[in-house]
Amino acid sequence: MSQKSSMNAKKQSTNNIKNLLDGRELVFVSNRGPVTFERNDKKRVAKRGAGGLITAVDSALSFSRALWVAGALSPEDRVVAAEGRALPWPPKDPRYQMSLVDIEPQRFELYYNEISNKILWFLQHYLFDPVKQPTIGPAEHIAWKSGYRYVNKLFADSIAAVIEDEPEPVVMVQDYHLYLVSGLIRQIRPDARILHFTHIPWPAADYFRLIPAEWRREILESLLACDVVGFHSRRYGRNFMDCCRDFLGAKIDSRGQRVVFRNREVAVRAYPISIDSDELLAHKERQSVTAWQTKFEEERGDCQLIVRIDRAELSKNLVRGFAAFRLLLQEHPEYLGKVKFLAFAYPTRQEVPDYARYRAQIETVAKDINDEFGSADWSPIELEIEDDFDRSVAAMTTYDVMLTNPIFDGMNLVAKEAAILNERDGVIVLSENAGAYEELRDGVLGVNPFDIKETMDRLHQALVMTPLEREARAARVKEIVLRNDSHKWLTHQVADLLKPSAPSSDQQDGARTPSLR
Amino acid sequence: MSQKSSMNAKKQSTNNIKNLLDGRELVFVSNRGPVTFERNDKKRVAKRGAGGLITAVDSALSFSRALWVAGALSPEDRVVAAEGRALPWPPKDPRYQMSLVDIEPQRFELYYNEISNKILWFLQHYLFDPVKQPTIGPAEHIAWKSGYRYVNKLFADSIAAVIEDEPEPVVMVQDYHLYLVSGLIRQIRPDARILHFTHIPWPAADYFRLIPAEWRREILESLLACDVVGFHSRRYGRNFMDCCRDFLGAKIDSRGQRVVFRNREVAVRAYPISIDSDELLAHKERQSVTAWQTKFEEERGDCQLIVRIDRAELSKNLVRGFAAFRLLLQEHPEYLGKVKFLAFAYPTRQEVPDYARYRAQIETVAKDINDEFGSADWSPIELEIEDDFDRSVAAMTTYDVMLTNPIFDGMNLVAKEAAILNERDGVIVLSENAGAYEELRDGVLGVNPFDIKETMDRLHQALVMTPLEREARAARVKEIVLRNDSHKWLTHQVADLLKPSAPSSDQQDGARTPSLR
Repeated sequence: MSQKSSMNAKKQSTNNIKNLLDGRELVFVSNRGPVTFERNDKKRVAKRGAGGLITAVDSALSFSRALWVAGALSPEDRVVAAEGRALPWPPKDPRYQMSLVDIEPQRFELYYNEISNKILWFLQHYLFDPVKQPTIGPAEHIAWKSGYRYVNKLFADSIAAVIEDEPEPVVMVQDYHLYLVSGLIRQIRPDARILHFTHIPWPAADYFRLIPAEWRREILESLLACDVVGFHSRRYGRNFMDCCRDFLGAKIDSRGQRVVFRNREVAVRAYPISIDSDELLAHKERQSVTAWQTKFEEERGDCQLIVRIDRAELSKNLVRGFAAFRLLLQEHPEYLGKVKFLAFAYPTRQEVPDYARYRAQIETVAKDINDEFGSADWSPIELEIEDDFDRSVAAMTTYDVMLTNPIFDGMNLVAKEAAILNERDGVIVLSENAGAYEELRDGVLGVNPFDIKETMDRLHQALVMTPLEREARAARVKEIVLRNDSHKWLTHQVADLLKPSAPSSDQQDGARTPSLR
Repeated sequence: MSQKSSMNAKKQSTNNIKNLLDGRELVFVSNRGPVTFERNDKKRVAKRGAGGLITAVDSALSFSRALWVAGALSPEDRVVAAEGRALPWPPKDPRYQMSLVDIEPQRFELYYNEISNKILWFLQHYLFDPVKQPTIGPAEHIAWKSGYRYVNKLFADSIAAVIEDEPEPVVMVQDYHLYLVSGLIRQIRPDARILHFTHIPWPAADYFRLIPAEWRREILESLLACDVVGFHSRRYGRNFMDCCRDFLGAKIDSRGQRVVFRNREVAVRAYPISIDSDELLAHKERQSVTAWQTKFEEERGDCQLIVRIDRAELSKNLVRGFAAFRLLLQEHPEYLGKVKFLAFAYPTRQEVPDYARYRAQIETVAKDINDEFGSADWSPIELEIEDDFDRSVAAMTTYDVMLTNPIFDGMNLVAKEAAILNERDGVIVLSENAGAYEELRDGVLGVNPFDIKETMDRLHQALVMTPLEREARAARVKEIVLRNDSHKWLTHQVADLLKPSAPSSDQQDGARTPSLR
């Protein structure tokens, strides 16, 4: 697909949404909004947020009546929230309205850190060590009631106010911070069209048992108050339906992708999020990126480059990635001096001890490997734990092998970005537990992230692959990513949401996700 | 059910099996056999093994043609194995034959400790900390090939030899040590009737991904070479079928409890194992038990007794049990001096660092609670980590509350033993993740083992329960256990195995497990 036709497709997609909405307001709800405000020398400054969601949604919300409701995250956000009215956004050429929900910092701490990030994030990525964690005591129950449940109610109240005069309002709630919003809105607005989308994995029903019975029930009942429940992959949708069966006794129809509960039918669908290829390819042309490219080419010398780019997140599995690389150097000494591993990790949640320890471990393992195998003129691993998007973009253009081996990962957009940016027919070694694997499996080399022997074998396979096979695989993943560009993510959801009585994957174009089976 | 009618039922059950087998030999296969031999002053001494499986099977194998094949675990077992012939067992009044498989110690170590106990046990009880474990490297792959796969082949070869002249041999393979046996037997004996029974939980498909793709496939393909695959509960059977769907692309029919793979139909059934109530009630009368009872009554004083009895196993959740008890003393000071917690743990796998650490943690937590809340004449917790069956039996007769809160547990026979033995209408607080919970839920108080607040609430509820409700609940669990006594476990399996074309739960009597749904 050329860049121009992609632009047209995007415009058409936005028009589709406009037509579907037919004058109704679309309310989009997430914890983090498209911008955060700061106060700088008495001036209010807006800082654009990062991340796949904002990329996918911001440019798509180009119709007259859209409102983005988000939490007030900074002190200046709280000032904006207190002013109590929606802001046209962006200010110069507004495409939608933005409204911030004020949250007391102590409650935000309980809602965001204690429940969402320390419990739900761990639960949904299988990050707990169940012999010890979680241990749900009185503090956690208070965090649920006075933090999570309370803040979800704040969001719901705020939304209820803005949709008060809307007939059949359309509400799209995002992610694991806001599971209880849909149920609260449904209570007061039986006529609303509500969708909840979860951006992280949904765990197996057995594992969902790690949280209290009351929380499970509240979360599931609220989600089943939606018309559509969306996930990145079919596997998550299936796990979700299993939970509805085991914990609510709901009737599930996996083939028909729906759950029947309290006489309502809820569609459970996969909408794999994607990237904005045009924006990314435009970014690649920047001088700040090409400077990095030049540097990498100089460093490359005779070596092939293995690249990884992640947050330094427990779920991303950096330590086992290095362990697999160490095995490669042990079992295939022919690579000594002939391969370099560039690992660029973004620091994350360093105030949480588990994360600080994990970062230290990453650094230790990398250093050990460099000490063991490095020579005066060759250092096997270059590890940088630092946020630098330009460098990441440059690294993605130039890898021979991209390793992304998360333990479990909702989508993993890095794999998609890499597929679009790379200029060397590089091979992607991708965890079978990343959401993206369901889409990209025909082009990537799949790997079990717990099996470092297999990971080593795949790295080796990628490094010795014939140019012909590399070319075919690179073309295949690129094609798959381009076919499901980011703007479709929203269009498909709105389409299903506004035809809730008969949503069918057959109505969608070729890039549509396969149905849940 | 009276003891006499129970005896009759048992005899009838054995007759049923005889009739069903109609002269064919039944081959029963497990890692650990009913006895282990030792050499004592040049004399061979047989030591009877313990555990639910031996109790359930040993007395039931009372028909002329049964052979129990087991691993040679001791040096003297290996001498017996080398003698190369089956032993009539028990020697004085033989009910079946016994045959031992010789295994080199190094291979046994890989098969038993490295794969079965360090990987499969952890996998199937959700005991891994996935950020770190498992890490499957070359050593684990060797342990699989040269240990697990090799020893399973030894068992299969040994069985193949004994069934060589049998038409339609009947083979029942036990547990997670021997997953590959069924497939190997099927290759050489298409006419065999094969059942595999797993005595531990079967994990969700997502979690089964923690082991290498090749192992998953080998295990599942072998199990689908059976005619019947058995588990303790419906939940495990459902998880198993999900694995067959996700990893082999097999067609599953959850409602019909069957999997179709390579044009063969495999029944997937729940056969909850039980206890021998008669034997247990007889044991209770021993003087060695009544002596303990007297001691407990003296110690009781004004206190109610909470009792727990477990192996000091990671999955048993002793630490959270004590944490819940601590909360009880904090939030309900009325129990100070009025309740005692007797915790009897059997030492287990102390040579494994994780287990040694866990034991130390159990001891520390108990001591901390005693230091914090105890007084000169009252110590809240009595913890003994030592194997003493008589004491356990006595404690089960005398509890007011029995706490058994495993993280995940295949069956948990302690809950059933407690129900039969208790003489005070004691209340059982049981983890919803124990296999026994599926059967006993109407009589016990269910608890989420990760939620220590809820665990405390259930302990409190049990301690203040009215005599009327205690009586009703105790009677209910007793009735359920008596209805499904141990001998039925084998009968139902043999019945299904010998009618594989149309096994149906409707053909069974009232104690039959509900079908998988």
